[in-house]
This record gives sequence, C-alpha cells and structure tokens, in this order.
Amino acid sequence: MTILRLSHVELRVPDLELATAYYSEVIGMIETGRDSARVFFKCWDEHQHHSVVLTMEPTHGLNHFGFKVTEADDLDHYQERLEAAGVAVRRYAADEWAPGHGTSIRFALPSGHEMELVYGMQQVGNLLPQTNPPPRPMGLVGIAPPRVDHLFLTAEEVDTNTRFLVEHLDFRLTEQIVGDDGFQIASWLEVSHRSHDIAFITGPNQGFHHFAFWVDGWNDLRNAADACVYHGVNIEMNPTRHGVTRGQCLYFFDPVGNRNEMFTGGYWVDPGSEPITWTEAEMGRAMFYYDGVVNQQFLTVHS
Amino acid sequence: MTILRLSHVELRVPDLELATAYYSEVIGMIETGRDSARVFFKCWDEHQHHSVVLTMEPTHGLNHFGFKVTEADDLDHYQERLEAAGVAVRRYAADEWAPGHGTSIRFALPSGHEMELVYGMQQVGNLLPQTNPPPRPMGLVGIAPPRVDHLFLTAEEVDTNTRFLVEHLDFRLTEQIVGDDGFQIASWLEVSHRSHDIAFITGPNQGFHHFAFWVDGWNDLRNAADACVYHGVNIEMNPTRHGVTRGQCLYFFDPVGNRNEMFTGGYWVDPGSEPITWTEAEMGRAMFYYDGVVNQQFLTVHS
Amino acid sequence: MTILRLSHVELRVPDLELATAYYSEVIGMIETGRDSARVFFKCWDEHQHHSVVLTMEPTHGLNHFGFKVTEADDLDHYQERLEAAGVAVRRYAADEWAPGHGTSIRFALPSGHEMELVYGMQQVGNLLPQTNPPPRPMGLVGIAPPRVDHLFLTAEEVDTNTRFLVEHLDFRLTEQIVGDDGFQIASWLEVSHRSHDIAFITGPNQGFHHFAFWVDGWNDLRNAADACVYHGVNIEMNPTRHGVTRGQCLYFFDPVGNRNEMFTGGYWVDPGSEPITWTEAEMGRAMFYYDGVVNQQFLTVHS
Amino acid sequence: MTILRLSHVELRVPDLELATAYYSEVIGMIETGRDSARVFFKCWDEHQHHSVVLTMEPTHGLNHFGFKVTEADDLDHYQERLEAAGVAVRRYAADEWAPGHGTSIRFALPSGHEMELVYGMQQVGNLLPQTNPPPRPMGLVGIAPPRVDHLFLTAEEVDTNTRFLVEHLDFRLTEQIVGDDGFQIASWLEVSHRSHDIAFITGPNQGFHHFAFWVDGWNDLRNAADACVYHGVNIEMNPTRHGVTRGQCLYFFDPVGNRNEMFTGGYWVDPGSEPITWTEAEMGRAMFYYDGVVNQQFLTVHS
Repeated sequence: MTILRLSHVELRVPDLELATAYYSEVIGMIETGRDSARVFFKCWDEHQHHSVVLTMEPTHGLNHFGFKVTEADDLDHYQERLEAAGVAVRRYAADEWAPGHGTSIRFALPSGHEMELVYGMQQVGNLLPQTNPPPRPMGLVGIAPPRVDHLFLTAEEVDTNTRFLVEHLDFRLTEQIVGDDGFQIASWLEVSHRSHDIAFITGPNQGFHHFAFWVDGWNDLRNAADACVYHGVNIEMNPTRHGVTRGQCLYFFDPVGNRNEMFTGGYWVDPGSEPITWTEAEMGRAMFYYDGVVNQQFLTVHS
Repeated sequence: MTILRLSHVELRVPDLELATAYYSEVIGMIETGRDSARVFFKCWDEHQHHSVVLTMEPTHGLNHFGFKVTEADDLDHYQERLEAAGVAVRRYAADEWAPGHGTSIRFALPSGHEMELVYGMQQVGNLLPQTNPPPRPMGLVGIAPPRVDHLFLTAEEVDTNTRFLVEHLDFRLTEQIVGDDGFQIASWLEVSHRSHDIAFITGPNQGFHHFAFWVDGWNDLRNAADACVYHGVNIEMNPTRHGVTRGQCLYFFDPVGNRNEMFTGGYWVDPGSEPITWTEAEMGRAMFYYDGVVNQQFLTVHS
Repeated sequence: MTILRLSHVELRVPDLELATAYYSEVIGMIETGRDSARVFFKCWDEHQHHSVVLTMEPTHGLNHFGFKVTEADDLDHYQERLEAAGVAVRRYAADEWAPGHGTSIRFALPSGHEMELVYGMQQVGNLLPQTNPPPRPMGLVGIAPPRVDHLFLTAEEVDTNTRFLVEHLDFRLTEQIVGDDGFQIASWLEVSHRSHDIAFITGPNQGFHHFAFWVDGWNDLRNAADACVYHGVNIEMNPTRHGVTRGQCLYFFDPVGNRNEMFTGGYWVDPGSEPITWTEAEMGRAMFYYDGVVNQQFLTVHS
Repeated sequence: MTILRLSHVELRVPDLELATAYYSEVIGMIETGRDSARVFFKCWDEHQHHSVVLTMEPTHGLNHFGFKVTEADDLDHYQERLEAAGVAVRRYAADEWAPGHGTSIRFALPSGHEMELVYGMQQVGNLLPQTNPPPRPMGLVGIAPPRVDHLFLTAEEVDTNTRFLVEHLDFRLTEQIVGDDGFQIASWLEVSHRSHDIAFITGPNQGFHHFAFWVDGWNDLRNAADACVYHGVNIEMNPTRHGVTRGQCLYFFDPVGNRNEMFTGGYWVDPGSEPITWTEAEMGRAMFYYDGVVNQQFLTVHS
C-alpha cells in the first residue's frame, strides 16, 4: 500500500504553442499526445504516457499534480482512508481524464491544491530498446532531463498540509524550517526514500512555487544553464546548492511564468529517520547554501 | 510489507587488523564496535550501527548479508512466507547476533548464501547534526563513500535464486543476461526502485563476487582511484561504465582478497517495469560497456 | 624576450594573523616565510617561494603585483623599452625586496598600479617528489588550488592601460567590452596563451577588484563553495560562468575585504588572434553569463 | 623566436571516405577542404584552416606533423639553426603544400619522422561570432573536442630525438622514464607551458603511436567513451589517468588503425623547471596510473 513517486503535473499556460515549443525544444521533452486545449509530454527516460500536461487557460500556474501508486488497489485503500477522514474524493476511470491516463482518485489538500493518485497510466516505453540498450539515446535536444523529480507549493498553513500528507498518505517528513516561535515555515516530505518528493513553504493557499526535473549531476546543471541562455530563457538562480536536501539546483521560468528547477543530488532516507530541522536564523542557508540568503523574488513569485 | 535496501555485509578476513586499517583509512568508514573476533563499521552518512562487519576467519569471503525491512512485523510476514515455502528460518533477538544489531531472521538462498532480514538496528546518527547540517562532514579520510549500495554473488543456478527473491521476498528483476539457449546467465534485482540492490552471475554456489559502496558521481570514481593508488591498493578495473544499470564503477580488492566496488549512476525503476535483457553476444558490453569484453579475472576470481 | 605568467600579488591586510589563518586554512596555501610585517605563501603546485604576500597595513587592497619573465635578461630588455618610453623603473637585486624573491624591475601602470617583472625567485619545489610523483599530495586542507591564475584591476582609462601593456610589455588583448560610444569599458589581456592573465574594468585608478586562483574543474568550484560556507566565508557569487573567457568562477572575500576568485576553464589563444568584443548591451552577459546582469556590489566594491 | 604548439598532423588512410566519415561524425571535426587524395579538417574551436589532414595511401600512419611558430621570421631563425647543425631543410611557400596551408619548413628528426614548422595558415574562424559569443556552438556532433593537443611517436633512440628538439627547437623536457641502466625509455617535451606537446617512446623509427585531442574535463572522457561505443569504435583504454602529466585520457582507434586519444588535465610548467623522472620499475604507473601496468598492445601497436 504505497505511493511511489511524483507522476505528473498539469500546468496552466495562456499560450499553448509557445509553452509547447519551450517544453519540446528547451527542456527537450517528448510530445506524446494533444487535444484541443492540452499537450502531453514525457521525459526521455520515463516510460509512462505523460509527466507534464500543458492546459490552455488564461493564467499560468498548477491545475493539479499526481503521484503514482504501486498497485491498483492502493487507490481503494487511500480513498477509504481519505473519506474516513472526511476528505471528498473523486474517482476517474482509465482514460477518462485524458487518453493514456490511468485510473485515479482526486482530492484537495487542506491548502486547496488538487492532488491525484494514479495507477496504470499507459506505458509508452523510454527512448531505448529493452534489449542491449545504450546508456542514453543520441540526438536528444535541449536540456533533456531523464525524468521529473519533485514539486514545491505554497500554503498558508504548512504544518496542516504536512500532517495531512503524513497521516492520510504515508509521506514522511525529512526536513523542515521552524520559526523561533515554533511555526513550521517550510517542510520537505518523501515517499521514494530520496530527500524529497514534495515540499511546502508558507505562502498563499493553492500557490505553485515550482516543479523540478532530475538531472544526473553537477555538470548537467552547467550545461542546462548554457542551454537556457542559448534559448533566451531567464535564469533566476544559477547553479548552487540547497542546504535542505544537500541537493544542487538551477532555477528558471518557462515562457508563460511557471518556475522550473533542474535538481540533482540529495540522499537516501530510511522511513523512521528523525527529520532535520533548520532554524529561522539559518533559513537563507537552508534554501541557498552558498548565498545564505533568499532573494525576495524567490519567496514571493509564485502562481 | 517491504524490504528497503541492503543493510550490511559480514566479510571473512584472515587478518583482522590489516582489514580494519583498510576499511578505516582507505575506504574511510567509521569503526562503531569491536569484539574478540569482529570489527563493526558504518559509512559516514549511514545512521545505523554497522554496514560492514569484519569477522576473523581463515579465509576471505562473505559470511552473510542483510537487507533492512521497513516495519518490525515485516519480519513475521516474510518468516511466514518463507516457512510456508519450506525454507528454514532462524530468528535472532535484538543484540543477539551482535551488540547494536536489530531483530532479524536468517535463511539460505537456493545457492546456499546466508541472507538476513533485519529491523531495528541501533541508530547511531550520521556524522552531521540534525539541526542546520552542512552537506558533509569535513575531515573525512580515504574514499569516504556515504553508504553501501549493492551486492553481487555467484550461483550455479541464477534463475533459481532470482525466482526465490522475486517470489518470496518481493524483489523485482530489472536486467538480465540470457544465453542463446535461454539460460539466465546473470540477473539484477531491486527493492529500492534503483537499478539494482543485488545481482547474481553464474558461478559456484555461495560464491561472493563483490559488494559496492555508493559514491555521488563520476568525479568521485577518479578520486577513489587516486586514493587506491596512494594507499597501494590494487585496482582491478579503472573507472568505466556498466551496460547493465548504465552505472559507473571502479573495482579493487581489500588487502585480504574481498572485491570492493565504488558505484554511481543507474536509474529509477517503477515496479511492474519490463526487465531489460542483454544477449549472450553482448555480455561483454553488458558488464563493461567501454571495453565490450570481460576479462577472465573478473569472471573467475571470487570467494 | 617574454613575460610568462602572473607570479605573485602583494596584498595589504590590517589583521595579519587573521589573514594568515585564512590563506592557510581556507585557501589552503603553504606558508613559506615570515618577517615582522609580512607573511609569504605559495600554492601546493607552485615551485616558487611565494605567490601571495600579506603585508600588514591599515587598509586592505593591492600593493603590487608581479609577472614572471623567462630569462634573466628579459628584465634588461623591458627596462630599456619602458625607460625609452619615459616610464620610471626601479630595479631590485635578488632577495632585496624579500628573502626568496628574485631580481626584479618595478614601474607604475598609467593607472598608478605598481607592477613588477621578476626573474629567479627561489625555487622551493611543489609538494610532490621529482621521482615517480602521485598526481597530488594527500592531506591538503581547505580549497587547495594548485596555483594563482590572474588579476583584475580598476582604472579610470582602461584603454590607456591596455595600450601600455600591449606596447611596452607584449601583452595581447583577447576580449573587451566596448561602450556604444566606442569607449573601452573593460579589457582582458594574456601573455600565457590562455584566455587572460590580467584584466581591467573602468573604475578608480589603483583600484583592486580581485585576484584569482586556478582550480581544475567545475566540481572544484562546488567543493570550494562548500569549504567557504564551512569556514564562514562570505560568498559573493556562487558558481557561474563568465561570458568573457567562457571560464567558470566563484567569488568570495578574505576576512579583511580582498576579493578572491576561484577560476577554471577558458581556452587557448594564439598570438595574432582577433579579440572578441562584447557590446555595452551585453555587458551583464559578458561578466556573468547565466544571470545576464552584474550586481551593483560587484561593480563598485574594490579597494 | 618561439614555437607555439602542435599545429596539425597528416595521417595516411587507405580508405579516405571511411576515415572522413569517422573524423566528421565520430570525432565531430569540421571539413574545410578536399582535393583528389586529401581531406582537411579542423576542430570547432580552432581558427586555422586544418589540424588533421587525411591523405589516401595504402597504409595507415603519420606522414608528417607540424608545429605553429609565433612570427614569420621564426621560420628563418630555425632554418638557420637547423642547417648550421647539418639538418636538411625544405621550405614551402604559402599554399604550396596545400591550399590554406601557411609558409613552412620541413626536416627530419633523427628518428626519421618528418616535422614541419608553419606560419600563416589561413584563418577561417572558429564556429563562434567575434561579438558576444556563446561559450560553445550548439548542434555539434560526435565527441567534438575543441582542438588538437599533442603527439606521441616511437623512436629507436629516444634520447637522440629529445636532444634534437631541445637543442635545435627549444623544446623543454618535462618528464621521462629512465631505465635502470640510465637509458631514456620515453620522454615528454613542451613548448606551450603545458605538461607536454610531443612525446617519444622507445620503438621503431618513424613509428606513430597516437595523437591527442584536448577535451575540457573528466566528464567529457565519459561522454567520449559513450560516443565511441555508440558509433562502434573500438576503445583500447577506458577513462584513466596517466602518471606522467597527471592527465586523464581515453584511447581508441580510427577505422583504418590510427590511434586517437582524448586528453585533459596536466599542469602549467615554467621553463627551467627540473624534469620529473619515472623509474623503470614504475613505468606501468607512469603510463597508466590506475592499472599500474601497460598492456602489451599499447606498447606494440603503432604504425
């Protein structure tokens, strides 16, 4: 009965063609489907039908995000637990929300974010053969990260969201920033034994800070930054290290205003591990370990 | 009900002091305990009491290895399944086998290897504080890998062992080398969603090929190789890539003859993924992607 | 008749013990000498007696810098040319300015910076044997760059300084930032066939912007940044790329206010190559390729 | 009066189309010219017309190699010195040997290798603009090294060749392997202040061991090895480190049998530095620092 990992994000984009060009050519994702108002993408090493869905809407931001469960009946299990806790759950049949999408349940976090658990998304294969594969395809374009990694959201009450994910969905808290008054300013949670799969920072409910792609190392962050400049993409934060997660990162925006991260590093974490706590005084270090401060834009620009 | 990851290996060493010096100063592990015939070590980023145990015996090789389970009653669950399948299981109370060791069950694989599942090993903390930690401790010595990674064993019947781990212990096959006659020459299996946690290659039953430490990147393999030469350690295979797992690696021997690997890379794998198959003709490429051949020593030297 | 490379910088430091601790333990240089008001340092892979000299004075900044010439009579050659151009030259005998220092000539640039050409500094060996050496010493502390690399100064008239170095000292212009009005805002010059050995940017005469150490790669910049934070050193600019030189860099300050850079990358340049020009509109990109802007501190803080 | 660096190699190839395809698509060089029996290539960051020339002949190997001089009259200077020493020198006018080639002098080393000094080769620009250039072009194919680096030849009397280059051409010995009987087994020499520009090892006169391209770092060696396997190129030695030069390297063969190296690392060396000596007992370590032995093929296969 376990949730595996981040499955996908559905982003709002006011200019579908522009955003499609960006996720294809700058990020280097593979387009796998399209309908009147939506385009579906996957990263080269992902086997499932989509991990980023662009939906044409007047604003940018996040419509919903999905986590993948291990077994079909994990959906029943979590639906039961959520409904027992008074959470409204909507179920989608396979292909109901979109062609290629699996069976799923949807519900709202206390912060109002729409979350999904999904099983059985159509498998389309990565770009490598199943027999004697090379380590990666040749001819990838743009940054070409192998997969999506995690999600960072804003919430008025971080601790309420954190508790919700821990109690009802078996996420585990790995790190947190705690104010001098004991207030949980930010939290990082995992289901995959990696340093985080989702995180929250204090801000407006339903707020979207960024989602991240995985890259394989520090060198890939430099190459990604080179690719951003080449394509005229605005880099918000050049390659640096987080204090939280020890990970290394690069931040920039898609052309309609959604923040992207390229992330690598982190650590393995066993269930039952004691969470790491960052104090308010070290919040800058927690976020950006080298600068030691967080610029105002990073804390306030979200959607 | 899940097995998490490789927990520890117990190695036989005919010269305990020599091997202790090596695992302390060349590998850079932390000694956490010692009794008359054994020395216990952990890597700097591991929280548990030990991940390598050296036991004084006339020969080198592997006495047993352990995987960590998530919950205490996972031990009951797997004991039941194993016994239902006719497998003899011995249970150890906490601290019974060794101080700091958790509760565990032991049993033999079809190949005769002694395997353990363990829960509740003493937590001793990694070398970092739980509040505002730096990304790594300063002053580490030797190669200083953060943790152990996986295990590679020889078995007369790889497929029998593979089936055993899949059916009774919920491991998942990720890659295999299959002979032209359909014979499974080697297999790689995971429980951690990474490319492998244990692997088997055709050879003598109870044979030990190597165990691996995790390092964070390709640069660490070069630094590890430099450290090996500095300390007079015999490098068997300089930094290269595996075809299987896409991982990158370095092989060398401890001073009593146990093969060590430093490993990095690999990929995330979902349960239910179709395994990758390497053909016999591409076996060299599967093992060492750049050479395309496996030298005879690598295939024949084990313990 | 050629100048080889940057030899040394003499820095003013108001707190000699504090600065000595920093250059020893954070930068990881080797102390090679000391007199009442000065401490002499070299990097581990440098053979000459000193490349950084700290001199106790009430302010921080640069007292003078030296370039190494190839042959003893290069000093005569350049003295003659400088004096023929009306430049006052002072000559020092070996060991006159400091024990271990070579024979040298000193003169002022048009910007008032005191420059030296030096030959025959005492050779003290790097930290490796001359027979069967390992690739680097073990047990280095701090960042441990192998050598100094270049120097960046401010001048009211960059073009006058540039012309002086080209005409009298055979430096070659590799890159420049040119204002829309044709004014040379900044210039980069080399004698070593690498992308730059010295550079100037418009600012006060005699101004010292920074000097740089060489590190071997992008990974070393991350490790250097980690070491800075560990030692409480203020990072001004986390790892990024310059547009000019294509190099990668990290900026931070010594404890008395002198800016240090760790630099890697760049390219080989033949004499006679056409210089690269950056326009005023792309000045941000020229300096910091990922940000595309130069923060005010970087342009205004110098000594 | 100085020689700058390796300018070009002229390789014999029995299959011109096959070799052209390889140097274009696997190495990723740019074709800049072609006549009935020759194809001319340059690397992307080289400005000169060619650095590799393929000449159709029944065997593989090296026809001649050229070093670039700084000034036009360096040719006269070296011609005079060589002729004074009894060395026959042939002079070529610009474009005489090939279109785009500069003025040059040719002569034989004591080992019979044909060497050239060249000035004024046609400048064709690298692949970047001279105004506001990005750090590298997008869309490069294959390994895409920025430039050629050095040359390794065999000679019956290494010491005679070494002395010739030092006495007549101002090369400087940086490292050597010396037999127990005092015999110079191998030598490394530089003109560029880098660890080597040319090297000799005991073997047949006129023998060609390999030439090397420069790559920017250790990661590029892994990527180059991946590209080799992808294109079916036979890797002789996977990424490793040399003891001599501390450099890191990868060896493989072009499709007609000429050995190529990708090289990075090394160090800066001042003129007048004491050479490093490797003893015969450490010859394996000198060549391949991790293996500590040189395989027989590496010592015996040349052309």
